[in-house]
Amino acid sequence: MQALPKHVTIKEVGPRDGLQNEAAEVATHDKIAWIDRLSETGLPYIEISSFVHPKWIPQLKDAQQVADGIDRNKDVTYAALVPNQKGLERALEADLDELSVFMSASEAHNKKNINKSIEETYDVLQPVVREAKNAGKTVRGYVSTVFGCPYEGDVPIKQVLEVSKRLFDLGIDELSLGDTIGVANPLQVDQTLTEIKKHLSVDQLAMHFHNTRGMALSNVLVSLEHGITTFDASVGGLGGCPYAKGASGNLATDDLVHMLHAMHIETGVQRDRLTDAGLFIQSKLDKWLPSHQMQICNKERV
Amino acid sequence: MQALPKHVTIKEVGPRDGLQNEAAEVATHDKIAWIDRLSETGLPYIEISSFVHPKWIPQLKDAQQVADGIDRNKDVTYAALVPNQKGLERALEADLDELSVFMSASEAHNKKNINKSIEETYDVLQPVVREAKNAGKTVRGYVSTVFGCPYEGDVPIKQVLEVSKRLFDLGIDELSLGDTIGVANPLQVDQTLTEIKKHLSVDQLAMHFHNTRGMALSNVLVSLEHGITTFDASVGGLGGCPYAKGASGNLATDDLVHMLHAMHIETGVQRDRLTDAGLFIQSKLDKWLPSHQMQICNKERV
Repeated sequence: MQALPKHVTIKEVGPRDGLQNEAAEVATHDKIAWIDRLSETGLPYIEISSFVHPKWIPQLKDAQQVADGIDRNKDVTYAALVPNQKGLERALEADLDELSVFMSASEAHNKKNINKSIEETYDVLQPVVREAKNAGKTVRGYVSTVFGCPYEGDVPIKQVLEVSKRLFDLGIDELSLGDTIGVANPLQVDQTLTEIKKHLSVDQLAMHFHNTRGMALSNVLVSLEHGITTFDASVGGLGGCPYAKGASGNLATDDLVHMLHAMHIETGVQRDRLTDAGLFIQSKLDKWLPSHQMQICNKERV
Repeated sequence: MQALPKHVTIKEVGPRDGLQNEAAEVATHDKIAWIDRLSETGLPYIEISSFVHPKWIPQLKDAQQVADGIDRNKDVTYAALVPNQKGLERALEADLDELSVFMSASEAHNKKNINKSIEETYDVLQPVVREAKNAGKTVRGYVSTVFGCPYEGDVPIKQVLEVSKRLFDLGIDELSLGDTIGVANPLQVDQTLTEIKKHLSVDQLAMHFHNTRGMALSNVLVSLEHGITTFDASVGGLGGCPYAKGASGNLATDDLVHMLHAMHIETGVQRDRLTDAGLFIQSKLDKWLPSHQMQICNKERV
């Protein structure tokens, strides 16, 4: 095994990527209470919602109220997704610390998700990134379908690189490489990062895995071996995958923290508080959350 | 990532280690039908039962009938556990290809599990291994609690090595290193294998992981990097962990095969047949099996 980093930054995306893929509607005051709990776990970053049009993601239509309602912890960076100019205006009003733009590495998924070609998407994002930066925000870029597309199948690394470089040209500060449908395997992550590191520094990159096939932690391990130190995760594995019904959702923050701490890699997260935050949001859903930590807690309670 | 092997041997332990940890009683004819299905998947090895006293593991009291009832596929090695002389006699009657002896790396677990000290256990196993070899059988040794003990906590690598070497001195052909309670993490697997490889060849070793904390595939990955090419697994993740209620069981054969094939590592296993075998045994239990492959199948059927 290669030498591993000593510290990892976990970006909690449950309130956005988790809830966006849950059927249950969670009340705004519960989201606020949940994010406030997450803010006290030691997590350095929470993506609280998405300023997309409510028509597309009704679960997150209360982004503004959530942003207004939460208690801001000065040690936490609060972020949200913005798809376009209109979303940016709402997000700037909500006064978040970081804003995230997103697009896909595959043409078909980009069209389906954003209703534009990849080329057209750059034109939409350019002023968004510029104005966010002008307003003093840091900007994160998400690339979806990096390891496979539900419509196109394999996605060439060349395409991932092209989109990644164009996003940095637009001015983003960090790029999150997304395994949107949870198909990435460790060999593929190894090959992809080997190629990407020829052009981008690991400090500019975050990895965003889904656990559809149970390989998320293995993919984290390979990424750590490559020197990646930032990972997106969702407490309890909240989320699911719209393309594989019944599949596990996002990489679970609680399982990730458990593995990293076991390997003497610091995260700053207090596991007991994180577990409480997971059990809290689980109590607002009509399902058990899939993380191993939640499974063990649930069985002890049954 | 280090270079990986091109082929992996999977030893299916579901009929023994899986069923042994399930509360449900599966009828003998269903076990036979299940093992016959497993025999047609391309799996090279099936551990069909255990010849321990029925008082200790009532779920496996029909070991003899199972051995008699199954159709032997000449491409499959059939194996069973034998704890002592009495078990050996029964196992030899059942005419299996390989017999397995077992003990723990930690004194407390060995006492609890075998009711003998580690030192006393060697005396019990010595004639068992000798007579099995004399009868033309290969013999496998299992060491439990390699990565942690439910009673003692950490288990020094020195102890693992001592037990391992003594078992090879007795004449075993292969050693399976067991993470009995699913606590192993990739760093620990890396450190343990680094140490063990100073004394034993990777060709003599198999790894036996449980997925209690979701780290089984990550631990496989590190083992592959160390050149290990034999892994124990249980279809569907059948099993559970007696020390962590509600926890996932054995590393799931179906998820393991999925990952290995995705990484272009051959196993000889046909995934569709393996899935069928998993769904078959699931239909005989009153629970969903925890593997990701089974989860996806179940959701599609609900």
